[in-house]
Amino acid sequence: MPDYQAILNTIYSEAIQASDKGIVASYIPELAHIDINNFGIHLRTSEGKNFGVGDYNKLFSIQSISKVLALSKAMELVGEAVWDRVDVEPSGNPFNFLTLLEVENGIPRNPLINSGAIVISDILVSKLKNPKDDFLNYIRDLVNDNSVNYNMDVAQSEKATGFKNYAAANLLKSFKNLNNPVEEVLDFYFHQCSIEMTCSQLSNAFYLFANNGCCLRNKLHINDRQVKRINAIMLTCGFYDEAGEFAFEVGLPGKSGVGGGIVALLPDKFVITTWSPGLNVKGNSKLGMLALEQFTTKTKLSIF
Amino acid sequence: MPDYQAILNTIYSEAIQASDKGIVASYIPELAHIDINNFGIHLRTSEGKNFGVGDYNKLFSIQSISKVLALSKAMELVGEAVWDRVDVEPSGNPFNFLTLLEVENGIPRNPLINSGAIVISDILVSKLKNPKDDFLNYIRDLVNDNSVNYNMDVAQSEKATGFKNYAAANLLKSFKNLNNPVEEVLDFYFHQCSIEMTCSQLSNAFYLFANNGCCLRNKLHINDRQVKRINAIMLTCGFYDEAGEFAFEVGLPGKSGVGGGIVALLPDKFVITTWSPGLNVKGNSKLGMLALEQFTTKTKLSIF
Amino acid sequence: MPDYQAILNTIYSEAIQASDKGIVASYIPELAHIDINNFGIHLRTSEGKNFGVGDYNKLFSIQSISKVLALSKAMELVGEAVWDRVDVEPSGNPFNFLTLLEVENGIPRNPLINSGAIVISDILVSKLKNPKDDFLNYIRDLVNDNSVNYNMDVAQSEKATGFKNYAAANLLKSFKNLNNPVEEVLDFYFHQCSIEMTCSQLSNAFYLFANNGCCLRNKLHINDRQVKRINAIMLTCGFYDEAGEFAFEVGLPGKSGVGGGIVALLPDKFVITTWSPGLNVKGNSKLGMLALEQFTTKTKLSIF
Amino acid sequence: MPDYQAILNTIYSEAIQASDKGIVASYIPELAHIDINNFGIHLRTSEGKNFGVGDYNKLFSIQSISKVLALSKAMELVGEAVWDRVDVEPSGNPFNFLTLLEVENGIPRNPLINSGAIVISDILVSKLKNPKDDFLNYIRDLVNDNSVNYNMDVAQSEKATGFKNYAAANLLKSFKNLNNPVEEVLDFYFHQCSIEMTCSQLSNAFYLFANNGCCLRNKLHINDRQVKRINAIMLTCGFYDEAGEFAFEVGLPGKSGVGGGIVALLPDKFVITTWSPGLNVKGNSKLGMLALEQFTTKTKLSIF
Repeated sequence: MPDYQAILNTIYSEAIQASDKGIVASYIPELAHIDINNFGIHLRTSEGKNFGVGDYNKLFSIQSISKVLALSKAMELVGEAVWDRVDVEPSGNPFNFLTLLEVENGIPRNPLINSGAIVISDILVSKLKNPKDDFLNYIRDLVNDNSVNYNMDVAQSEKATGFKNYAAANLLKSFKNLNNPVEEVLDFYFHQCSIEMTCSQLSNAFYLFANNGCCLRNKLHINDRQVKRINAIMLTCGFYDEAGEFAFEVGLPGKSGVGGGIVALLPDKFVITTWSPGLNVKGNSKLGMLALEQFTTKTKLSIF
Repeated sequence: MPDYQAILNTIYSEAIQASDKGIVASYIPELAHIDINNFGIHLRTSEGKNFGVGDYNKLFSIQSISKVLALSKAMELVGEAVWDRVDVEPSGNPFNFLTLLEVENGIPRNPLINSGAIVISDILVSKLKNPKDDFLNYIRDLVNDNSVNYNMDVAQSEKATGFKNYAAANLLKSFKNLNNPVEEVLDFYFHQCSIEMTCSQLSNAFYLFANNGCCLRNKLHINDRQVKRINAIMLTCGFYDEAGEFAFEVGLPGKSGVGGGIVALLPDKFVITTWSPGLNVKGNSKLGMLALEQFTTKTKLSIF
Repeated sequence: MPDYQAILNTIYSEAIQASDKGIVASYIPELAHIDINNFGIHLRTSEGKNFGVGDYNKLFSIQSISKVLALSKAMELVGEAVWDRVDVEPSGNPFNFLTLLEVENGIPRNPLINSGAIVISDILVSKLKNPKDDFLNYIRDLVNDNSVNYNMDVAQSEKATGFKNYAAANLLKSFKNLNNPVEEVLDFYFHQCSIEMTCSQLSNAFYLFANNGCCLRNKLHINDRQVKRINAIMLTCGFYDEAGEFAFEVGLPGKSGVGGGIVALLPDKFVITTWSPGLNVKGNSKLGMLALEQFTTKTKLSIF
Repeated sequence: MPDYQAILNTIYSEAIQASDKGIVASYIPELAHIDINNFGIHLRTSEGKNFGVGDYNKLFSIQSISKVLALSKAMELVGEAVWDRVDVEPSGNPFNFLTLLEVENGIPRNPLINSGAIVISDILVSKLKNPKDDFLNYIRDLVNDNSVNYNMDVAQSEKATGFKNYAAANLLKSFKNLNNPVEEVLDFYFHQCSIEMTCSQLSNAFYLFANNGCCLRNKLHINDRQVKRINAIMLTCGFYDEAGEFAFEVGLPGKSGVGGGIVALLPDKFVITTWSPGLNVKGNSKLGMLALEQFTTKTKLSIF
């Protein structure tokens, strides 16, 4: 086993020197106020070892990273029926774009862009008895930590300013690809995005994708084949219109969020989570991308 | 003066023989139930003569034809400031398409497509004291008939199914091109579209565009230059993605609605209104297009 | 009759003061070297009166203006069959865009965008015995002046740099909407665009569109209905993605070229030609647009 | 080690039963005449073991599979400078689409779509002394077999019908992203696509991508980092607009061609090649996709 702690320390020290740390998301005040100097990395290996550096125990808004967990829950509930309502192809376009959705008759390109994630939310709203409570409990189970919670201020702010998501949801509704009322689905969606975790909690939450569908508590949530699919989608669609770049530079399935978090994983080996709130022009964490590129370069551990 | 009555009679008799009368709009029950055999034509000359044939005194839903009247009122209220928020170019795309709106940063292509008309509604909601009452009174003034009214069932049905318009309004809001709440603007917009008139009432309502801005009651609403602009926009943008075809076949400024109505006019000469609820694939009245093409061919009266 | 000469003089004097005269096209040296201070206006009335001011007797490259004359000749030769291969709708996009062409399976939006004009060239190459000679003679006939000619240097430069036109022609070929070899069609097309005329010659050339299809030499080339169609297409499609703006500001059918020329006309009344080589950002002559807007405002003569 | 021969035999026997074998590409006669019943699979492990079933020793046209080999050679010659002229993002659109190329100013989305491969051809034409000879020798070296050759009839047919590629090359030229003449670049490109190999030769040719850049003859062509990048691009962009589906179903980097071949690989483990000329609607070999999905399912060997 490589000396992971030493590697993380080196990467951290180098990355923190970067003169340009990107720009913190500013569309809602709760994100705009985050200190750009936060930076943490956490690694959890399949053997159960944990390594961390910097702010890896501070809570941050996971935002779009939640889309992978929602997809996983939806697959657990309805299996392959998910794919009747959403495709699995990269979007090749920025994450808010409605164009493709309209051209392709209301079938979102994949479940990790906003419109696709809204369809997944609709599935969860249909299938869960108490959608918000049940989904939160699912996350708490994965993380094995009941302190994980929604940030109600964030959810409220997203709702008050999320006009593009309202546009997407209404467009889906016009194509009959939304079964529940727009308000109800988006309320769930905005809450899902508002979940807060630390780097180490996120590493735990994603552990099932590196462990054949079996979570920390040793419960099998999804099968081998489903894990393979979710990892494939993360690789091809997890980074907005920078998915190719991430596959190319880092070479791991992963997912980013505008809160500045990134989770990536190597099946049967490890989950690694970074958090630095400064984003590059494509909306992905600048230091996070850098750190992960360095990690796979230094360890020579990638899927390619 | 040509023998207009004889010409209308001939056109009517020929058109009514058409084996294919198009398809009645079916997205709301109030439109779906209209008898496809309704067909009326009305002509009002600048000298004040009136000619009619068929069902020219039956009420129908004017739908998108209302967009021209709303634009006219908005220009009366804010003048050229309208053009800060909406462009004047043909859309080159079907009438519900959100794509261009997104590509062009929330500035609708023109005020006669749905997104543009929603911006115009927003202006009216901002400027009118009691928007729905005041706009209705404006129309009644133009028509010189206080019986003109909204159809509340139509407005309600549009609201319950108008997800694409909700999508457009939210997209406009995301680009900060909607000042009032989405619900309030769309409530006004759906009412505006629900107005019912007869062919002869519509000819009267549009009289000001053939009469230098002066309505039937001899009140000057807009100036020469504004009339010229509204007529230009009708010509280039009045028929969804069939504007070129209409200019080409008919050669008059005009506007159609999915209720099956079409109004067209020759400045200083006449206003002509047709109604036949069967639509062609582009959403314009099939017999109406045919009748107007025949009218300008037989009379040699067009702008070209 | 208004005092046209006085009006032209006033417009000329005012326009020439403009601090911003636009930018001369620079993609080929022959155009780049034109003095931006050239400016001429010529008016020919249906009664045969001529009025001119400034450089209205200097030759310039008519460029895209030739597309209207090529369309006219094609309609003379094959009639309505033209419309099997090209549509009549505004493009709603910049003049070089291949996107719509691809989306719409090789049917150009209209005959006044490059791809549509290339299809018209293909028709002329098929139907004319000696395409380049015959077309030139057609133009000379219209103008009633045998001195009109191609500019071989311009044709050659267009050919050497016209990669987007080669792209469009090959795309048309891939959709089987080009019958002759790409090289042959484009050779004709580049020559057609290289024709040079003065403002007064262009007013003469376009006289048939204001005179029911009958040219200066009193020969009937196309019928009433065809004239109406060509004028409609000029109005809706004659100014790249500024067609709506031109209809709105000027209110006449017309066509511009990157050489800085604009021809516009009012049926049965007049043809007016302007030339000023500085272009606005949409590729239309800046002073020309200004002068024509002033002309229809001052004379109140427009189609609307 | 799994019993690969048995697994291949099973997959072959099952796949050959498929009632729908897709449709053989018919745009050139040389491909149209291929018997749809051809079907071969070949596997080469990193240890140098070879396994084959069916027609794995018959020559077929590798077509777009050649794009990966051309990219590899270009990276060997100019390194990261490749990425100044072509991006690494999935296209999200069918393989011939010019739209994105135009919208994105002549920078192709990735080197495995036609426009991107034409840019790579341009690089090779610039850097190789005798481009066609040198490239062929490079392939022969990789395969360790001097019998590999171009099919001149195929190259000629592609040239005579490849109008979309001419359109793309001219569009690239208009954006100054092609340094050599269109004819010269496309002549090279069409030859490259015409190369014929057997399944086992292709497995050999791609061996360097599973072996850290070192070919069969033990020559290091590209470094670790470059291999990782090429594999990432194959995964995200190797299957036209079905890349996500392939990643999702198969989970290996790979590349398909319209000749019906597919090569895929697992780094440090194996290269597998299938050939069945019947294509699905997305242009990928129907039985090939099926066989590879079965292979990774049965062996549980994928990157995810």
